[in-house]
Amino acid sequence: MGEFELIARHFKRPSNRASLGVGDDCALITPRAGYQWAISTDLLVAGQHFFNDVDALTLGHKALAVNLSDLAACAAEPVAFTLALALPQADDAWLRLFAKGLFALADAHGCELIGGDTSRGPLSICITVFGELPLHQQSSGALLRSGARAGDDLYVSGNVGDARLALLALQGRVQLSADALAWARRRLELPEPRVGLGLRLRGLASAAIDLSDGLLGDLGHVLESSGVGAVVLADALRQTISTRQVFPGLGLSEQQWTELAFTGGDDYELLFTAAPQHRNAIEAAARDSQTPIQRIGHIRAAPGLQLLEADGKTLAPARASFDHFASA
Amino acid sequence: MGEFELIARHFKRPSNRASLGVGDDCALITPRAGYQWAISTDLLVAGQHFFNDVDALTLGHKALAVNLSDLAACAAEPVAFTLALALPQADDAWLRLFAKGLFALADAHGCELIGGDTSRGPLSICITVFGELPLHQQSSGALLRSGARAGDDLYVSGNVGDARLALLALQGRVQLSADALAWARRRLELPEPRVGLGLRLRGLASAAIDLSDGLLGDLGHVLESSGVGAVVLADALRQTISTRQVFPGLGLSEQQWTELAFTGGDDYELLFTAAPQHRNAIEAAARDSQTPIQRIGHIRAAPGLQLLEADGKTLAPARASFDHFASA
Repeated sequence: MGEFELIARHFKRPSNRASLGVGDDCALITPRAGYQWAISTDLLVAGQHFFNDVDALTLGHKALAVNLSDLAACAAEPVAFTLALALPQADDAWLRLFAKGLFALADAHGCELIGGDTSRGPLSICITVFGELPLHQQSSGALLRSGARAGDDLYVSGNVGDARLALLALQGRVQLSADALAWARRRLELPEPRVGLGLRLRGLASAAIDLSDGLLGDLGHVLESSGVGAVVLADALRQTISTRQVFPGLGLSEQQWTELAFTGGDDYELLFTAAPQHRNAIEAAARDSQTPIQRIGHIRAAPGLQLLEADGKTLAPARASFDHFASA
Repeated sequence: MGEFELIARHFKRPSNRASLGVGDDCALITPRAGYQWAISTDLLVAGQHFFNDVDALTLGHKALAVNLSDLAACAAEPVAFTLALALPQADDAWLRLFAKGLFALADAHGCELIGGDTSRGPLSICITVFGELPLHQQSSGALLRSGARAGDDLYVSGNVGDARLALLALQGRVQLSADALAWARRRLELPEPRVGLGLRLRGLASAAIDLSDGLLGDLGHVLESSGVGAVVLADALRQTISTRQVFPGLGLSEQQWTELAFTGGDDYELLFTAAPQHRNAIEAAARDSQTPIQRIGHIRAAPGLQLLEADGKTLAPARASFDHFASA
């Protein structure tokens, strides 16, 4: 099957927002007046971001989910995306499943595929996603990394650390029961982009970032961009690991849970800050978007990151100090 | 060197059009009121679209050039692009050259890098490019594949076939002198996107496509989208092969020259149609944009493609009939 037939069979659909969708040199789309566009690109490479034998349905979901998560972190509403796909071979059954996972999530968010490219090559997926933000007097309410202020509360959405736990189990570096692995694996393979929460944080949150590289590193970007420091309550963060809550007695040490929570990666949750007077409104935003959130600390003027245990002890925050999963 | 340092060193530049460029979850850009956006994505994979050992400077140029060529074919003006880069290793010298080639072309067209992603992985480059078209009463003057009408002239810009000739020589399937190879290779590695010509064809050309997969196939897309057929003058097309003009006596057969011209690929020239009353204006557009063009035939109502020799003989247009370069 050639490239053109492959595109037509799996990826050509009627377009709504685009005046011209898949199939010409360019897609044509008329941006709505009074809106700013948020644009993000993510590249997923086999063997780096997913296992070579990953299920195509979940891969289609995840490839778009990680992009929608970037829009969520900017409080932008998804509009459209392009897809570039390198494939070792044109496998019809694989493509059908990939497209199914991709479009199920795209349709749930009203995000339209408007163009793309395919090539033979080692499996990789590059998605560029477009979202919009209403402009009000020069400002679009976009959530940036640079807006955190001393005294702000620090929040995280959903569950942090489960994805890394699943990865470690699949790599044979920790042992989990089949039930616990299946649970954690859903978080690794089917992350839910927090678009609804992101939209409701407009005007409330002072800064936001999506958690893709692990909380310590991503929080570091916010602190650096904002010129502030933070105190994180280790216990509050560890409690967000859902596998730990649902399957007690998994045999991991407290140090290991701490590492999972702080340096997990692949979480695709929102880390955000907001002034304390917005606490009620933030809780309402979480409720309205049916997204669990957890207050995990606060922003301080003094630079640096302090991890605080319940007994008042502090942990060294350097990533190098977390290495409690020796390679198998 | 980590991903973030690598981005900062080679790809972070001040932004003009974007309110927020490289370095947050999303880039933010406010589309100009009264303009439509043209969006295109191209994926270049090592071993498929370029040799693994290709010079990084020319690769940086070509990766953006093939995308700008899509904008040119829609008569859109370049605005911005995103870049996703998979690299086997973070090689500082390689990246410096790649960025140099990329930004030289980007700056020449006022096209701004607004975001991207990097990953370890087999070398590949995915660029998504954004251009704009002024909206006039619902229409933006975008050139589509579907507008060709019976009686229209058929044109091609620049040189067709040189890129494939260089590829065949590099693969050892034809023998060229060092001078002739160097000449042809420039067309393969440093294609010049015909942005200036594309912009001047607004309101003149009835259809356009950029030549990336070979003239026969790409013309086929125009004919199919427009519901028409075409007559192509083989001699006029062969004359566009610049290596043939500059280096006579290369020893290729007429059949081989014909195959190069018709099924070349990687040309990144514009193939376009226009009503005969626009001939003077089309010639002026070519002059003003300093782009050579050649009238190579016309559109007819009867479906199908006829290749006409000067002596009145017709050639079979099927690609299968062109196989005059036996593998070495």
